[in-house]
Amino acid sequence: MVKVLFKSHEKEVYCKEGDLLLDVARAADIFIDAPCNGNVSCGKCKVKLLSGKVDTEKTRHISQDEIKQGYILACNSRVVSDIEIEVPSKLSSSMHGMKIEGVGKEKDEAIFNRAKKIADTNGLKFCTNIRKKYIELSEPTLDDNISDVDRIQRYVRNNLGYNEVDFRLDVLRKIPKLMRKNNFRVTLTYIQKKNKLTIIDIESGDTGQSLYGVAIDIGTTSVVVCLVDLINQKLIDKASSGNAQIKYGADVINRIVFASKKDGLEVLHRAIIHETINPLLQSIYEKNNISKDNIISVVVSANTTMASLFLGVYTDYLRREPYIPPFMKSPKLVGEDIELDVNPSASVYLAPNVASYVGGDITAGVLSAGIWASEENVLFIDLGTNGEIVFGNKDFMMSCACSAGPAFEGGGIRCGMRASFGAIEKVTINPETLVPTLGIIGDCDPVGICGSGIIDLICQMILNGIIDRRGKIQKDLDCNRIRFDEHGIGEYILAFKDEYNLENDITVNEVDIDNFIRAKGAIYSGASVLLQSLGMDFTVLDKVYIAGGIGNSLNIENAITIGLLPDVDRDKFQYIGNSSLVGSYLALISRSAKNKLEEIANQMTYVELSVYPGYMDEFVSACFIPHTNIEDFPSIKAVLNI
Amino acid sequence: MVKVLFKSHEKEVYCKEGDLLLDVARAADIFIDAPCNGNVSCGKCKVKLLSGKVDTEKTRHISQDEIKQGYILACNSRVVSDIEIEVPSKLSSSMHGMKIEGVGKEKDEAIFNRAKKIADTNGLKFCTNIRKKYIELSEPTLDDNISDVDRIQRYVRNNLGYNEVDFRLDVLRKIPKLMRKNNFRVTLTYIQKKNKLTIIDIESGDTGQSLYGVAIDIGTTSVVVCLVDLINQKLIDKASSGNAQIKYGADVINRIVFASKKDGLEVLHRAIIHETINPLLQSIYEKNNISKDNIISVVVSANTTMASLFLGVYTDYLRREPYIPPFMKSPKLVGEDIELDVNPSASVYLAPNVASYVGGDITAGVLSAGIWASEENVLFIDLGTNGEIVFGNKDFMMSCACSAGPAFEGGGIRCGMRASFGAIEKVTINPETLVPTLGIIGDCDPVGICGSGIIDLICQMILNGIIDRRGKIQKDLDCNRIRFDEHGIGEYILAFKDEYNLENDITVNEVDIDNFIRAKGAIYSGASVLLQSLGMDFTVLDKVYIAGGIGNSLNIENAITIGLLPDVDRDKFQYIGNSSLVGSYLALISRSAKNKLEEIANQMTYVELSVYPGYMDEFVSACFIPHTNIEDFPSIKAVLNI
Repeated sequence: MVKVLFKSHEKEVYCKEGDLLLDVARAADIFIDAPCNGNVSCGKCKVKLLSGKVDTEKTRHISQDEIKQGYILACNSRVVSDIEIEVPSKLSSSMHGMKIEGVGKEKDEAIFNRAKKIADTNGLKFCTNIRKKYIELSEPTLDDNISDVDRIQRYVRNNLGYNEVDFRLDVLRKIPKLMRKNNFRVTLTYIQKKNKLTIIDIESGDTGQSLYGVAIDIGTTSVVVCLVDLINQKLIDKASSGNAQIKYGADVINRIVFASKKDGLEVLHRAIIHETINPLLQSIYEKNNISKDNIISVVVSANTTMASLFLGVYTDYLRREPYIPPFMKSPKLVGEDIELDVNPSASVYLAPNVASYVGGDITAGVLSAGIWASEENVLFIDLGTNGEIVFGNKDFMMSCACSAGPAFEGGGIRCGMRASFGAIEKVTINPETLVPTLGIIGDCDPVGICGSGIIDLICQMILNGIIDRRGKIQKDLDCNRIRFDEHGIGEYILAFKDEYNLENDITVNEVDIDNFIRAKGAIYSGASVLLQSLGMDFTVLDKVYIAGGIGNSLNIENAITIGLLPDVDRDKFQYIGNSSLVGSYLALISRSAKNKLEEIANQMTYVELSVYPGYMDEFVSACFIPHTNIEDFPSIKAVLNI
Repeated sequence: MVKVLFKSHEKEVYCKEGDLLLDVARAADIFIDAPCNGNVSCGKCKVKLLSGKVDTEKTRHISQDEIKQGYILACNSRVVSDIEIEVPSKLSSSMHGMKIEGVGKEKDEAIFNRAKKIADTNGLKFCTNIRKKYIELSEPTLDDNISDVDRIQRYVRNNLGYNEVDFRLDVLRKIPKLMRKNNFRVTLTYIQKKNKLTIIDIESGDTGQSLYGVAIDIGTTSVVVCLVDLINQKLIDKASSGNAQIKYGADVINRIVFASKKDGLEVLHRAIIHETINPLLQSIYEKNNISKDNIISVVVSANTTMASLFLGVYTDYLRREPYIPPFMKSPKLVGEDIELDVNPSASVYLAPNVASYVGGDITAGVLSAGIWASEENVLFIDLGTNGEIVFGNKDFMMSCACSAGPAFEGGGIRCGMRASFGAIEKVTINPETLVPTLGIIGDCDPVGICGSGIIDLICQMILNGIIDRRGKIQKDLDCNRIRFDEHGIGEYILAFKDEYNLENDITVNEVDIDNFIRAKGAIYSGASVLLQSLGMDFTVLDKVYIAGGIGNSLNIENAITIGLLPDVDRDKFQYIGNSSLVGSYLALISRSAKNKLEEIANQMTYVELSVYPGYMDEFVSACFIPHTNIEDFPSIKAVLNI
């Protein structure tokens, strides 16, 4: 056994000689960002070896200078002696400081109310089949000595008119003591369905006003939980955090690969339930002084992979042709089945999936966006860790998924990061000096750059002639912000380490730009092909809804300039926030919204881009700024003077 | 901390100074028979202190001689130093050697077939709603890329005609890998109900012939498990053992008291599931080479207390006036809910209860006895740890429970024991010498006397003039088998310690006889009052069925002689074995038998003896041999020459 001291965390653990440092850190519950999950491809798991020896290999992610300083990658270093390690604090804490869109309560309410209004005007009723009722039972006597359960059933039959009265074991276990706590005065929580009534909870005394539900949006990157009062349908509180699965891979493909390894599925299932959702629920209960037993309904929206891992279902066939999801509609579930910190009998409903890469988050998003009721043609783009696109109106809906990868959340970019504290989210470049002005989340020293920042940066670079339309940096610019390495690869310096208190300069190079161009090309060409498959083009669009975490600081004009979004009237664009979460909120407060979700999933046509004829050509054409065919971007053509 | 060495078990454990020796033994998993559960009232938990010191109190259960030898009661001795203890081996192993009725397979089959025949001739159909079906699914392609679950549902809709196809989470978790194991050829196990089909298991390949269920009879004293082939309804195997709850109390009242203590309910729930039933199931699976996943239906019969503890439901109100059971009909359950070692989705059905002391074991017994279809008047007596009585025919049924206590299983008798190896089960007494001849279970040295032995003994004592009709031993008999202590209490010596290899004589004294007379009086008067409540008497009886563990070696003539059973034609009596087990077997193989069970429970009237006017007088009159009113026992009157 050898000893590993994580000096930054003041934590000392023991491991076997030869253990991978990344695994040791994970076992010690020390978060090291490793989006590529140990494939030595992203270079994000850089840590500093302070003393001792590791067995490591050279990698392009560590410069000569960094080698001297002791930097290694945790994912390709094996511990061979007692060592001391420093995990860069900004990286290790990036998950906790993650910025989640719509944190302001007013803004939240506006978004939720907008969706409610759409639902309301289109005939969805705001009621559920869950009820609470305070009842006063007669006390048992020798002459009236039916069982406790029969006493309740008799009351229900005689007073509520249900002949079939069901209940679950955990309710039965509560009944005897609880009925007698307050002289046989109890409150029943029950679900009505046809002629059957299912009792899902029993409480002492009158608790008829405590009826809550939670809407949960499980993103690949972040998870949001909303506490909702089911009596008045009000949003009470919201809590969010990073998805604790992140340490096992940044995107769904890496998670699926990890889940296919020994115990991997169980590890990821536990990570989402016990390390992400349950702590969020606990914090929200404590803050609002609510018992978990009063949470009697849960609606979850998630992409197909996240939904499967949430249920502990094997995911490997999602990533293998012909890309088969395990399920579209989940089975009937209660909280206890997956150890969710809610009432054990609470119903847990998952928004139905459409395909392997168009999941319940998209059906929920479409529900809240109201596309199903829209007379106008709507293009819906969810820019998260995945890129999903829906096009349609009240008569039809088409969907596709783009392999955009995690670029919009900083993946595949050397200095890229998620939209958390220290991320450069806005960039402008002075046309004279080519010096940038940065907007940084948290107004602190910059740590890296996030998706919206990269969009701004690339836009500013092309507008100021720093890059050409292929993303190549011009060689004849006389500016200290631009430099080329020994292989001739150019980079632009966003922040010199001396300007701030940094260990290294923050730069974006041609490889990063190329990665990002391919990501934006995937989205644009996906949307384009989706319309083509109907014999249409972008001129038919009446509305373009942008949803997802990326959207928050997204500059629409810049996004059109680089060719991520189509060049249509700017007032057609609308940012609709976390539409997936809003959709699960609607399904939580409305039975007819749940039914609508099922309808949406059934009606939506899925186009598998990877086998769609002509998609590759479209994609290649879109890997250009803004596009190979500049005529598709008339307003940009003028600006760029082409 | 002090050290306790259980020398007999070669087991050494540590405990706190002042800990009760009985608790220390239980924590160490060493079985010490303690039927009264530590009330210092039965004297059964006698152990020998070999060295060290305990803090104990004098008790009538330990003689002066035994004190000298180091005997103490585990239930009133606290450990105050390191000690060495010897647990008498015969006591500690009595549970394992317990004799269960009907062990012979032929005898079993005869009993089961008799019940099947009754059911068959009375219109019960032998089929269930559980099916298996081998199906060959088409393999997914890019053009046919519906989810795995949808693929199965589509097949079921198109080929089996069910529109609603449900499945449980544990089945969903199996689906993706399992479907691909054998090229999408799988066997479904499902339950049909109205228009709905619920898939409860999926297996690779064709396993259509492996469909099993288990019938479980949970007695207060012993537990029996039957493995049944659900395709041909054959009884495959049977296993039985003592109920591991015994160490926490011999009868239901002591169990209820224990269950009301801190953690007591959980301890008893675990004892029945994890220490009794699951080990029995495991042994039966191993022996018959069957996977637990192939057990897809379970039927359990148990008295109301045992059924509640089986489900982990609080029982304390069962023993408090007005004696309210928590439930009659259990909720819908699957194996996973109570961690039963069967398929997690297997349905678990409990025979419904009628009252606090007439449980599912009695409804199941009545089902198998066929009273519900009988033209004749049947008296049904279950002589187990409790005494339950049913009287009726196809038109009506009445039931009651007698507080007979555990006397029929050796409780309340100083040398009493359950019907396990070493128990004296038959006794005859030579009229000349008054010397007994003993029938001993296992043909070994005697350890104690069981219920049927006591019946024989008391009968022989009255026939030979050793006792009078009040159970008092005659003083003027010149025989070394009879002696009186300093208080004048007489005892009869069944076995001198020198005759066998015993530590003490085996005797039955006047206090024991008195206890037993009260138990038999409770049964007789219960039956009598039950008939009186209908304005009838024993002359209306066409049949008397004796069921339960006691029945096996029961001598009917002797039982009538002492006034346990009514003095009616001997050929009206029939021993029907473990009728509760047979009833749950019927419900396992027949849906209509299950429905019949519900009907029986609904129709049966319960008479609460403890508040029935005149019951106490009847009971007092019956506490006499055979009865105060000898005219009710004409044939005995002649024999006894009264």
